[in-house]
Amino acid sequence: MTSPTAFEIAARFASVKSSPVRDILSVVGREDVITFAGGIPDASLFELDDFHAAYDYVLTHQGQRALQYATTQGEPELLELLAARTSRKLPTTSAQLQVTSGSQEGIYLVGQVLLDPGDVVLVEQPTYLAAVQAFTLSGARLIAVETDDSGVLPDALDAAIAEHHPKFVYLIPTFQNPSGRSMPVDRRAAVAEVLLRTRTPLLEDDPYGELRFEGVSAPPLAALPGMAAQTVLLSSASKIMAPGIRIGWLRAEGPILRAIEVAKQAVGLQSAVTDQLAVARYLATCDLDAHIAHVSRIYRTRRDAMADGLAGLLPASATITHPEGGMFLWASLGGGVDTAELLPKAVDNGIAYVPGWPFFVADPDHSAMRLSYVTNSPEVIAEGLSRLAKVFGWA
Amino acid sequence: MTSPTAFEIAARFASVKSSPVRDILSVVGREDVITFAGGIPDASLFELDDFHAAYDYVLTHQGQRALQYATTQGEPELLELLAARTSRKLPTTSAQLQVTSGSQEGIYLVGQVLLDPGDVVLVEQPTYLAAVQAFTLSGARLIAVETDDSGVLPDALDAAIAEHHPKFVYLIPTFQNPSGRSMPVDRRAAVAEVLLRTRTPLLEDDPYGELRFEGVSAPPLAALPGMAAQTVLLSSASKIMAPGIRIGWLRAEGPILRAIEVAKQAVGLQSAVTDQLAVARYLATCDLDAHIAHVSRIYRTRRDAMADGLAGLLPASATITHPEGGMFLWASLGGGVDTAELLPKAVDNGIAYVPGWPFFVADPDHSAMRLSYVTNSPEVIAEGLSRLAKVFGWA
Repeated sequence: MTSPTAFEIAARFASVKSSPVRDILSVVGREDVITFAGGIPDASLFELDDFHAAYDYVLTHQGQRALQYATTQGEPELLELLAARTSRKLPTTSAQLQVTSGSQEGIYLVGQVLLDPGDVVLVEQPTYLAAVQAFTLSGARLIAVETDDSGVLPDALDAAIAEHHPKFVYLIPTFQNPSGRSMPVDRRAAVAEVLLRTRTPLLEDDPYGELRFEGVSAPPLAALPGMAAQTVLLSSASKIMAPGIRIGWLRAEGPILRAIEVAKQAVGLQSAVTDQLAVARYLATCDLDAHIAHVSRIYRTRRDAMADGLAGLLPASATITHPEGGMFLWASLGGGVDTAELLPKAVDNGIAYVPGWPFFVADPDHSAMRLSYVTNSPEVIAEGLSRLAKVFGWA
Repeated sequence: MTSPTAFEIAARFASVKSSPVRDILSVVGREDVITFAGGIPDASLFELDDFHAAYDYVLTHQGQRALQYATTQGEPELLELLAARTSRKLPTTSAQLQVTSGSQEGIYLVGQVLLDPGDVVLVEQPTYLAAVQAFTLSGARLIAVETDDSGVLPDALDAAIAEHHPKFVYLIPTFQNPSGRSMPVDRRAAVAEVLLRTRTPLLEDDPYGELRFEGVSAPPLAALPGMAAQTVLLSSASKIMAPGIRIGWLRAEGPILRAIEVAKQAVGLQSAVTDQLAVARYLATCDLDAHIAHVSRIYRTRRDAMADGLAGLLPASATITHPEGGMFLWASLGGGVDTAELLPKAVDNGIAYVPGWPFFVADPDHSAMRLSYVTNSPEVIAEGLSRLAKVFGWA
């Protein structure tokens, strides 16, 4: 009687793409496929007993509260604990925080609050694709800034700001997704100088920063003099605790906080109270630092397994990044290879990765791929690499 | 160094208002204030032991999965159970469902997927204000359709569709928020006839439908012949299980489902897996129908306490609705009273309600108020009404 076309999808939605990562994830649930695709923590490393105890405490002692409506900003004890943790990097009060359902929601809310259709966001090249998705849904035009192994180039950033008048710049300065690159201290200072001089707001995404294996820790850009007032700093429990509970938080100052809170009301009233209280209990009673140190030691051996294994396999045309932490390694194979085209053959051969092209907002490197080293043991990584070598005809 | 105005809030955000309900909620946490304001379930009625057991099961037997990333659509066992439950009203497969973080997220996602700036949404008069907020954030213009005690008037709906070409119509046909009104079966048929003839999509919000105290149950509009393909039907665990866990679900058919899934990726990847699995376990092992019957019996006595109490107090100029279920009673006081103006005095006197005007998208009734009867016992309701009478000078 009625055709399914009764629903007319919005025009602004037409350019929003599904996440290739999510789509690949749904394909590679197969037992016989080794996946380097998702930024998926190794579930066997989750502090399951600690979280079980935290939920048990919450439902025993705070049950009615955990199941009830609550304020949009977040649960007070969680905000206090997150403020204390964030203050290690940058002095932060609980009033400067908003709890989000993962840092993805933080990215999305900032886009909703700041972007009118046609507004420009400057991003790294390559950049996190679900951020591209979120900003595009808000109607933004994304412009890539030239990026080297130390992050965006300050001069290129300066020029892009002058030319495009962006609403904000989106950066992942530490263990970037997808490249694994980090911005050294001196580059951070130079980038901050440009942002301060041009009064350009920054959305700083820092989900991986605590997963450092080696090298010198650098402060977030938000912590450089003058930057706090013009930066929204995003953090997440997903990579250091567990992603299934969907808890992140953002730090900001001034009127934008209130606007973000109103947007979050509209999107979903508040994050799950059960999970907020469980994370608060976990933070109050467990040793997250010890857990992070433990996980980082294991991830380091996995990075080594992947980087060393690739070094012995890759053709001369290839370059790879050497991440000092985080989850991802980025390989550009060169030589006219198309990693997207070869993905079905790879999955047929029991190995999955994410092709590089979706991480570019312009001029994609079709020979690039993102490889996550955190999900699998060194032995499985070795097997996965030998499958990759077969698919790509290496060695 | 930098002024807080570095962040320039988007123009389209300027007309998005904070929810007066949420703002009132943050004020009335005070012990000495009786609140009729929020649609807040009585926490003492939550099935705390059942939920505790469900989370315990999940973290004992499905712990790694509960803490891990998952697909955007929702957990398979939860989708199956929700499909079975939804099929009581309308045959539904799990492939036709999307899990949402409360039905608020469902409202928001449908707005994001269907609305371009300037598009029209037709709504009841009055209507749910957080839906107004969500649609406004998507850039919509909201137009109210003339509404009587049986819901929108079919002729007025027909005329408004012809004049405004809405992207969709948003209705809460059963125990409407804020009015408590329900659409009888014959009105539903007449409204469906208009929507089918004009091929106008419907967003049907049904969070309260199972909380019926009396009267004849009516099918959702989505279940009328031909309507399923052009309706998104929203349901929620918030009013029948618990709101703190933030689980809702929507039913749709055709390409819109995929678009909604992509939008949800951008907003937050997926709903909390812990909570999804706990709700699945609860549904699989507990008697939700018995719980709803129990809660409905109690809510009925509270509705009676409020309706009977008001009947003896209200001035002759006032009218009130007589809800057969749900959470809200709507009083229009008439006589030039301004309920928003009197709210501070009411809170000072230890009683809170929601003024009626924010629920109107045009021509507000400033003498109206929304009163929730579900949060408090009949004794507390009686005390609250006597405080209201004092504030408003009744009797």
